[in-house]
Amino acid sequence: MSQIIKKSLLAPKSFPKLPNILGVNLYSMHAGIRKKNKLDTMLILISNSVNVACVVTNSKTPSAPVMWCKKIRNIGKARALLVNSGNANAHTGKEGIETVKNTVNAISKLFNFSKKEIYVCSTGVIGEKLDSKIITDAILKLDIKKNNSWKEIAESICTTDTFAKGAVAYFQYGGKKYKIIGIAKGSGMIYPNMGTMLSFIFTDFPLEKRLLSDLFKQSIEVSFNSITVDGDTSTSDTCILFSVPKKNNVKLVSNKNDKSVQKFTKALDKVSINLAKQIVADGEGAKKIISIKIKSAKTYKDAKTIALSIANSPLVKTAVAGEDPNWGRIIMAIGKSPVNIKQDLLSIKICGEKITKNGSLVKNYNEKVVATKMKSKEISIVVDLGIGNMEATVWTCDLTHDYISINADYRS
Amino acid sequence: MSQIIKKSLLAPKSFPKLPNILGVNLYSMHAGIRKKNKLDTMLILISNSVNVACVVTNSKTPSAPVMWCKKIRNIGKARALLVNSGNANAHTGKEGIETVKNTVNAISKLFNFSKKEIYVCSTGVIGEKLDSKIITDAILKLDIKKNNSWKEIAESICTTDTFAKGAVAYFQYGGKKYKIIGIAKGSGMIYPNMGTMLSFIFTDFPLEKRLLSDLFKQSIEVSFNSITVDGDTSTSDTCILFSVPKKNNVKLVSNKNDKSVQKFTKALDKVSINLAKQIVADGEGAKKIISIKIKSAKTYKDAKTIALSIANSPLVKTAVAGEDPNWGRIIMAIGKSPVNIKQDLLSIKICGEKITKNGSLVKNYNEKVVATKMKSKEISIVVDLGIGNMEATVWTCDLTHDYISINADYRS
Repeated sequence: MSQIIKKSLLAPKSFPKLPNILGVNLYSMHAGIRKKNKLDTMLILISNSVNVACVVTNSKTPSAPVMWCKKIRNIGKARALLVNSGNANAHTGKEGIETVKNTVNAISKLFNFSKKEIYVCSTGVIGEKLDSKIITDAILKLDIKKNNSWKEIAESICTTDTFAKGAVAYFQYGGKKYKIIGIAKGSGMIYPNMGTMLSFIFTDFPLEKRLLSDLFKQSIEVSFNSITVDGDTSTSDTCILFSVPKKNNVKLVSNKNDKSVQKFTKALDKVSINLAKQIVADGEGAKKIISIKIKSAKTYKDAKTIALSIANSPLVKTAVAGEDPNWGRIIMAIGKSPVNIKQDLLSIKICGEKITKNGSLVKNYNEKVVATKMKSKEISIVVDLGIGNMEATVWTCDLTHDYISINADYRS
Repeated sequence: MSQIIKKSLLAPKSFPKLPNILGVNLYSMHAGIRKKNKLDTMLILISNSVNVACVVTNSKTPSAPVMWCKKIRNIGKARALLVNSGNANAHTGKEGIETVKNTVNAISKLFNFSKKEIYVCSTGVIGEKLDSKIITDAILKLDIKKNNSWKEIAESICTTDTFAKGAVAYFQYGGKKYKIIGIAKGSGMIYPNMGTMLSFIFTDFPLEKRLLSDLFKQSIEVSFNSITVDGDTSTSDTCILFSVPKKNNVKLVSNKNDKSVQKFTKALDKVSINLAKQIVADGEGAKKIISIKIKSAKTYKDAKTIALSIANSPLVKTAVAGEDPNWGRIIMAIGKSPVNIKQDLLSIKICGEKITKNGSLVKNYNEKVVATKMKSKEISIVVDLGIGNMEATVWTCDLTHDYISINADYRS
């Protein structure tokens, strides 16, 4: 797998400073799936059996690890998370399922964990067999006392990513300070559909497992499910949130109306959206991040459907790449979505500049002003539908020559 | 509007030889919408009021001419067709509707035609005002006795097209010879949704208007509605079929079980599919035509949905551009479609070579053989779902650097 290793121009300056979470132990390895001694496997061991929420891709051709996660997630408990990059273990038939079983069995035996508390994810090339032995061998060689960093863990799950992705948020409640830490990977084949790319989030906030799951789904909807790079949905998208309380016998929050929940949700959204935007910033070939907000829709779903129709339009994305305020393509993308709108009420802004109002061009429109603003790395498109009071925001990147270069010779 | 004038490598060797249809008079003009004396307007006048079927885009932001066609098509009669290129007259508000009215009024007055028998189409940039006067002035200057050719007519509706598109088919019935002649345009923003790009088809076969409409819709489903270049649906897609009998008082065919209908349908599909494939061959930046056949599906709709999911995947299209048998991306695209499948029954062929059978890689798979076959200009992908007996075929093109070049500076 040839890698484009030049860091995205849109990458954050550095990997954020992420604190430890008590009871969460991190290990990164080079098992030999990827070349050149690159980190390709990570293992996270948790001191106790903790509550977990897991959301996976809606793909009809899910990978073997996704099928495993779907099988165990209803139990809602976790002790371990194993992830490899370089091979998605997808569409690998019975042998692929066997690979997952072998690694789960090995971890279960080695650490005396229940099998159904061991989460497994794989990301990389689809259709190639994944040898479980090189992974279990690498785990056997681990020095369990020697923890790795969040950054190393994040690096070990990268594929075409050009930078490791991490985020943190803090909140206080009842005199106590809590943290939410997340890592993610993703760069191409990004159009999460009710799941997400790989992202793993840990918090020391104690949550009952049903509420944990509900809150996580809500957060995913406005973050990982609100991004697209190329409209292509991965077979491997998986997102897992672990609640690892500082103390074992702490009272779990289970009421969604508890005042602490609002604070937690806000912090969780901050981390999820931060990571989701980092995935877009690392979109294959991306030179610009585009935020698309649809206002005054009848429903959130309508707003999001139109936003994603714009975000997935190659003509809109190439226009942004060319710094061309070709707003007719935004009209086209609104029109091709299945949502009913009133064309005569549409208003569009690009980079804060009014372009159309009530269905046609504003009178004093100056294309040059907008074109100049579009030289920025961050492009905002705001569409006011004028028919309701709901809104949605999604993020995507532009479509450039580098996307073609990366994907026309990815495996060669 | 800067034009890429280099002819597509996938273009037919020459424009086909198209015979006249008695009573159909062709005129092409340079009205001044496009630069450099390029043909930009065509007018077709028909000697009598004939039966017509008209299918337009399902876009929620249709152009002013599309709105006009939707208004008059139920009457099912036509005397004239006016088409301009270089400006789509889309999202132009009330002024856009006024432009259509003005041109229709001018033609109606000049030739004494009923307004509701005058069809109008526009194609080109979205959102710019279209001045009706330059068009009506050009029509007034016409020498009505001097007909132009099908090729000139086809050229006058081109925008980013690199070649003019025409097709013909003949059939015999009851000792009589009939013909079907069609022209089309389209290159980008091609993902017709229940409509098509601009295409105009004429036949001397006499058909009752309701049957004409039904047969046309069927033909569009397997031709223009089975192609995609970039997944972007135009605001202007319009397809019109005119039945212009040789004699005025001929008996019209109105029974769909009439034996002549089968012959007509076969010839019509031939013309529609030929034109649709020419649009794909002229797909922006296209270097290869890809045919995607889904077999053994439960329904035609299921088969087509999966075929279009593959055809619209930028990752599949860039892999074909790179001549890379990256079949994992086909699996991904099957998986992201909403159709339920059985992953363990999937079989895939690329360029006639078996890749997977029953859900995983065939044992003697030789990637190099497939890669060599993929150097061809025509790539076939066949997926057997193994769950039913319906099939569908769609056509698309690869996604290349030239698509980005064309669309990142289309208007600059």
